[in-house]
Amino acid sequence: MQDETLLMMPGPVPMPQRVRMAMAKQAINHRGAEFGECFEDINRMLKPVFGTENDILVISGSGSAGMEAAVANFCAKKKVVSLVNGKFGDRLYKISKLYSDEATGLASEWGTPLDLEKLKEELENGAEAVTLVHNETSAAIKNPAEEIGKLCRKHDALFIMDGITSIGGDVVKADKWGADIAIVGSQKCLAAPAGLAAVSVSEKAWENIAEWRPLYLDLLAYKKSAQKSQTPYTPAVPLFFALREALRIVEEEGLENRIARHKNMADAVRAAAKAWGLELFPKLDKYHEYSNTATAICYPEGIEDSKFRGAINRMGIEISGGQDELKGKIFRIGTMGATGAPEVMAVLSAVQKTLKEQGKTPQSCGVMAAAEVLKV
Amino acid sequence: MQDETLLMMPGPVPMPQRVRMAMAKQAINHRGAEFGECFEDINRMLKPVFGTENDILVISGSGSAGMEAAVANFCAKKKVVSLVNGKFGDRLYKISKLYSDEATGLASEWGTPLDLEKLKEELENGAEAVTLVHNETSAAIKNPAEEIGKLCRKHDALFIMDGITSIGGDVVKADKWGADIAIVGSQKCLAAPAGLAAVSVSEKAWENIAEWRPLYLDLLAYKKSAQKSQTPYTPAVPLFFALREALRIVEEEGLENRIARHKNMADAVRAAAKAWGLELFPKLDKYHEYSNTATAICYPEGIEDSKFRGAINRMGIEISGGQDELKGKIFRIGTMGATGAPEVMAVLSAVQKTLKEQGKTPQSCGVMAAAEVLKV
Repeated sequence: MQDETLLMMPGPVPMPQRVRMAMAKQAINHRGAEFGECFEDINRMLKPVFGTENDILVISGSGSAGMEAAVANFCAKKKVVSLVNGKFGDRLYKISKLYSDEATGLASEWGTPLDLEKLKEELENGAEAVTLVHNETSAAIKNPAEEIGKLCRKHDALFIMDGITSIGGDVVKADKWGADIAIVGSQKCLAAPAGLAAVSVSEKAWENIAEWRPLYLDLLAYKKSAQKSQTPYTPAVPLFFALREALRIVEEEGLENRIARHKNMADAVRAAAKAWGLELFPKLDKYHEYSNTATAICYPEGIEDSKFRGAINRMGIEISGGQDELKGKIFRIGTMGATGAPEVMAVLSAVQKTLKEQGKTPQSCGVMAAAEVLKV
Repeated sequence: MQDETLLMMPGPVPMPQRVRMAMAKQAINHRGAEFGECFEDINRMLKPVFGTENDILVISGSGSAGMEAAVANFCAKKKVVSLVNGKFGDRLYKISKLYSDEATGLASEWGTPLDLEKLKEELENGAEAVTLVHNETSAAIKNPAEEIGKLCRKHDALFIMDGITSIGGDVVKADKWGADIAIVGSQKCLAAPAGLAAVSVSEKAWENIAEWRPLYLDLLAYKKSAQKSQTPYTPAVPLFFALREALRIVEEEGLENRIARHKNMADAVRAAAKAWGLELFPKLDKYHEYSNTATAICYPEGIEDSKFRGAINRMGIEISGGQDELKGKIFRIGTMGATGAPEVMAVLSAVQKTLKEQGKTPQSCGVMAAAEVLKV
């Protein structure tokens, strides 16, 4: 649409019309049957997306509220190890330090593999909880959640997995992987509006619930209210309606198809980068993979971040730059949610044109390479 | 509308069409200029509604999140006195106990006057912060915020005022009254969707900022981000658009007109209760008043809460019962937000009809008494 910027960032992402219209509904009493039905629909439809049979609690707040809820309720006073190879891993570490005096950060350079050997050592030395960002969008690297879950299980440690940007767009099997806590944000792969975080909680986690809990993020209060299909505090009702509609779309598409579509879009972006002769940012090993919901590409010499993204923006498309220490070094393209081949072709065309205009003539046509992958 | 229940509760309240439609907008980048403009518009329009020149910070979360933010950021480790004469006063007391080891509850029976003499004593004995619910909807009583603000100022104590259900519908002058913190919820008198809380913070409060602060409710982080017209964590963007539209409507109506309309609606409900021969729930003294945004009426003998409200609900109108210890003893009619004479006449007609049908023939016609007040 001419008056709407096409968001090809690692969230927020464009929302389908049905999702947007669901928000425009008149206010209802959130203690009544109509909200209860919406609450239950969301719960039922989220479970397969998380790959869990555990309780799922929906907080009216951002993904960061979900991250804080996970740590505040279950890691306080515990010996926590936070795995960090990007901005969001670092945020979980920061939260762990807020709630525990025994929080350790196991940091690798952003976009490089986590050190699983060191994690093993920490677990052998008595670590009781591990935090991980499954899909670290700041560096577009996918961390080995299944592997880390196994290690946690072996040492009986709680495993807190931020799946904010993978759940609904990539394979996540919270129960099979042993994720005691998994977190998703509404405005990422689910293509709902920003403002909700959903947190799944295992039986083992409930057994470890902290004695001191904050009020608004007290997950035990959410669990109690969930028995009446309610939330303990007033929910952001329009966002619940929107999330339900977004989950209906996930159901209609089929989760496997949706995941395949996400992988295909990311494959196409990576094929384009290769054709252009540009380097992908993450450094992988046998455990780590490229993210299938966001791709980070290193700027070639001579391309200046704000000028580059500014030009793309003037074409009506928004991509992301690097965050914090990666500012000016990479650009990131999100392939999340309801977007498909047309949007991927659009953003790649804009990037290719801008690269050329700003002095970096691509080695070959990335748009065509992507089209092959997308089978358009 | 036939398919929509008319909400005449103390929030949530019906939203004007313009507000609902504002939510249906496509997703945008919340780090860009378009969001910044919305952020600034909200800030500018909230200030006169709060009666403040202080910073106002908008949290994506319910009113309770705003209440917790106020206490967590400014009362931790302080000697806090929480004034309690209803459910929400009690919630602030509960939060104060979470964050301070020296929290005292000054409780009166719900719906009865607060004890200002005891408050004076506490302040003379070194209380450093006072929490108050200005408009206690659980009991429909308006507490003397101005008076309490004076006492706080005299003793140099921080004054935290929950104006969740008064700001935008009744006279609130945060600066003049010395409210260091004032809080509003989006889904009350402002007639926006549920899901946002706005918190104003005085210079004196900033000087008292707690060293340990939670992540999601860290108001200092909100203050820093506000310099860029942003929020520290992803905001619930559709709710911001809706709140802006709701505030535009407040501006168009004029704040004084809006407050007069609210008072007139509540006067009409009280006139009806009097005509029916029913007792208003709150007990007042010279400092306390009836709420102008919600009215609590005692059930006459023989009327059963769920049967009574169920019958009104079948007529397409929703009112509230009593909460917690007041369940079954009172019913509450909200007169908040965008509703006016037609909605008040509708709810009063439904109540009057149901009273009669369920065995309590009203003394005289409350609907007519209300019509006189409303000048319909």
